[in-house]
Order: sequence, then C-alpha cells, then structure tokens
Amino acid sequence: MKRILLTISYDGTNFCGWQRQKDEYLRTVQGEVDWACGKLFIKDINCIGASRTDAGVHAVGQRAVIDVETTIPTQRLPMAINSHMPEDIVVTAAEEVEADFNPRFRALRKTYEYKIYNSPFRNPMYRNYSEHVKTKLDVEKMAEAAKAFLGKHDFKAFCASGNSSKTTVREIYDISVAEEGDFIVLRVTGNGFLYNMVRIIAGTLIYVGIGKIKPDEIEDIINSKDRSRAGKTAGPRGLTLMNIVY
Amino acid sequence: MKRILLTISYDGTNFCGWQRQKDEYLRTVQGEVDWACGKLFIKDINCIGASRTDAGVHAVGQRAVIDVETTIPTQRLPMAINSHMPEDIVVTAAEEVEADFNPRFRALRKTYEYKIYNSPFRNPMYRNYSEHVKTKLDVEKMAEAAKAFLGKHDFKAFCASGNSSKTTVREIYDISVAEEGDFIVLRVTGNGFLYNMVRIIAGTLIYVGIGKIKPDEIEDIINSKDRSRAGKTAGPRGLTLMNIVY
Repeated sequence: MKRILLTISYDGTNFCGWQRQKDEYLRTVQGEVDWACGKLFIKDINCIGASRTDAGVHAVGQRAVIDVETTIPTQRLPMAINSHMPEDIVVTAAEEVEADFNPRFRALRKTYEYKIYNSPFRNPMYRNYSEHVKTKLDVEKMAEAAKAFLGKHDFKAFCASGNSSKTTVREIYDISVAEEGDFIVLRVTGNGFLYNMVRIIAGTLIYVGIGKIKPDEIEDIINSKDRSRAGKTAGPRGLTLMNIVY
Repeated sequence: MKRILLTISYDGTNFCGWQRQKDEYLRTVQGEVDWACGKLFIKDINCIGASRTDAGVHAVGQRAVIDVETTIPTQRLPMAINSHMPEDIVVTAAEEVEADFNPRFRALRKTYEYKIYNSPFRNPMYRNYSEHVKTKLDVEKMAEAAKAFLGKHDFKAFCASGNSSKTTVREIYDISVAEEGDFIVLRVTGNGFLYNMVRIIAGTLIYVGIGKIKPDEIEDIINSKDRSRAGKTAGPRGLTLMNIVY
C-alpha cells in the first residue's frame, strides 16, 4: 500500500465545497476525487484533504492523500486519474509520502489569493472568480492596512463561528494588496487560517478601501478579539487556495 | 425616437452565439438583450449587433443599437437595462447616435483576443475562456509568423464556408503573440474579419508553435487562397471580441 499526495486544481463554482456531505447527492470536490480514484483503482477511496474549502471557493494547489496499491508509476497517476475526472477538477501532480502523512496537520504554510473586481459594472467572465465592488477602492490604504496582519496574533476577531480549532492564534508570514488592471488582488501566506479568516480579512480591507475603517485601526481590531469590529465576510467566489508548503 | 449605441460584455459559455435563432428556445445574447430592453421600454426590441459572435465566444466590447423613446438620460441607460439582464451579460456604456447608424457597417476597426492555455494539464478555471494546448508551443516562432498577416490580403484561405461577405479581402492593422504566464495571447486588430478568420489564424499559429508549419510558409498559404493549407479552426472558447472603433 502506498500513500500518494495529490495536487488538485478546481473551479469551485459548481461544488458544495470540498468536504463530502452526508447527503451524497450534493456535489463535492472530495466526492468527485473519491469517485474518480475509485474508478481507476477499483476500490473505495476516502481521500484526506489539506483544506476544507467552502462552496464557491477555488483551488490551484489543494492537496489530498489517497492510499492505493498500484503498479502505475507515481508520475503517471495524474493523467490516469484525470481520465475519470469531470472538467472542473484536475490533478496536476502526485508524489509518494510516508504512510502516516497527514496533509492537513503537516502543512507548514498556505497561500490564498482573494480577487476583487473594482469597477462600476459587473464583469460577466469573472463573476465566479472575483468579488465585485462598485465603489472605487483606495488600494494604497488597503496595502498599508494589510501590514497590521503580519506576524503572530490571536485572530479571534477574524474567525467565523463554527471554527473547530483549539487555538485562534495564527502567524501571517506575508501579505500584499496589488492593483492588476480593474482587479485588486490580496495575497496572504500563513501557517494556517481559521474558518473564513481570509474572507473576513478581505472584507475588512474592503472597508478600509471605502474609508469605513482606517488603516491604523486594524491593530486595535485584532487586539479586541471582537468579530463584530472586523468587516463583513467577503463572498466565496473571490477566494482561491493557491499553494501549500510541507 | 432615439438610436442608442450600447457597449455589451458577455460570457459566451451558455449562449448559442449572438444571433437570435428561429427556435426561440435557444438562448442567444441578442435574444437576452432584446428581452431586457423590452422589459425596460415596454415594447418589442430588435437590436442590431456589430458582430455575430459564435456559440462559446465571449465579448468585452460588443456593440449593438436599439431604437427607443425614453426620458431616461442616456448615461443612466446601462444601469437601467442591467437591472433586467442575466448575470452573464452586462451593458457598460450607452451613447446616442444618428438614426441610420449601422454598428456593423460603420465599424472602422475591430480587435479580437485569442487565449491559449499552454500547459500539460487542463486549467479548470479557464476551461471556458481559453484553448488548451498540451504541447509546449514555440512562442517566438508564432510571433514571427503572425507578422505575415499584417496588411491588406485576400484571406480566402482563412475563411470558413458559410461566409456571406462580398469580398474576402481584409486589412490587418496590428497583430501580436505574447506569453503571459502559462497563457499565450494572440491580439489582432483589423478593418473586419471573415467567418471564423481569427480562429483559423489562431489554429494556424498553433501549427507554427508545434513546428507543423514554418513561419515563412504563412505568406504562401495566404497567397494560395486554399483553406486546406491553413491550420484547423481553433475552438470558440479562447476567443473574445475586445473592442470596436467607429
């Protein structure tokens, strides 16, 4: 038996999130990965994912492990699995790992991208891949405010109810806000993220961008540990899990 | 009665092209524009489009005219029409034009973009917005070959059957092939394009990129006026109508 670590990319639009639901009729990414691998290896598969992305959230570098007995060379597994995958999921890499490798707890750092389309009119082609904000945002203030998230903090104010982690302390290694045409892209790397944390950071930075929160207030909001002082949870469609480092 | 020129952006994925079909159950962009404007102005609308994009082809800067009697200020029309539009179409501008303004025949130049995703694996998020080519393409050769299309030529070799134009002579003002991450983007501006012309140019440049056609053969292929010597018609999803100048 080998444990294989897969890198998986998907368009989250037509999924009820990563995690398989009790109601097996709900389409989930995990369910499709299990189904495709089940077809290939002719056995029941229950993959373990690194990150439980919500409905509508996308991934370029999701990771998951499967346990299989196979003679297919590891580097050929992506092609073999993809032949059973729907068009909105693709496996882009596979490597063998130790039998006890847990892709969730072994993650050293994760990078997310949050995309805002900042224009008076909607963008039909990016409607599922960005959050539309009509009001012109002050990108410089957003970038300034973002710096306050750097480092180790108790991010309780940036955590949705339903979070199951033991601690709300996380460390942000890198964060940036960049203007790219009509898009504003937030990129954030940390040792882990609480439930909805990136979307609440994005929503808070949008409030900074419209002038509702000042950049120098972010530190206070973090220290308050009070969810009601942070911004709204920005929508799922703008969020993409970019990369996980082990 | 005023003639209003609209700028329209759409995601072509879920449309049977621009043009209204005899079978009114087929979803078309023109049909949706007519329906939305009909709701707003409470009368039958038959808009005239500048370009009959095919099923799957997208637009950022499509143009169409409507004839209406209205007290709504012209600059407010996009917002008013959009309130009746589905999420995959948006009107981004409106201006009053002369009563006999024909958006198709008055066009001085049109710009199209053709996007190729050049990577061993599919990209789920761009599956509807790019053509996937697995083989590594030689972008420099493609850019070199593209230059041969510049200027006034008889583009009969780059025209699908079913073309209704009187002449197959067209002038290309500008053409470029650029590498943008894992994408290769062809941008072409001309005084007009024959049926499937941009997609046949894209398909021919893909053949150049894989070495099946040499850059210096393009001139001969154009002069041959022989469709069978050019490349395949590249898929519709990679194509976007970017801009029309009057």
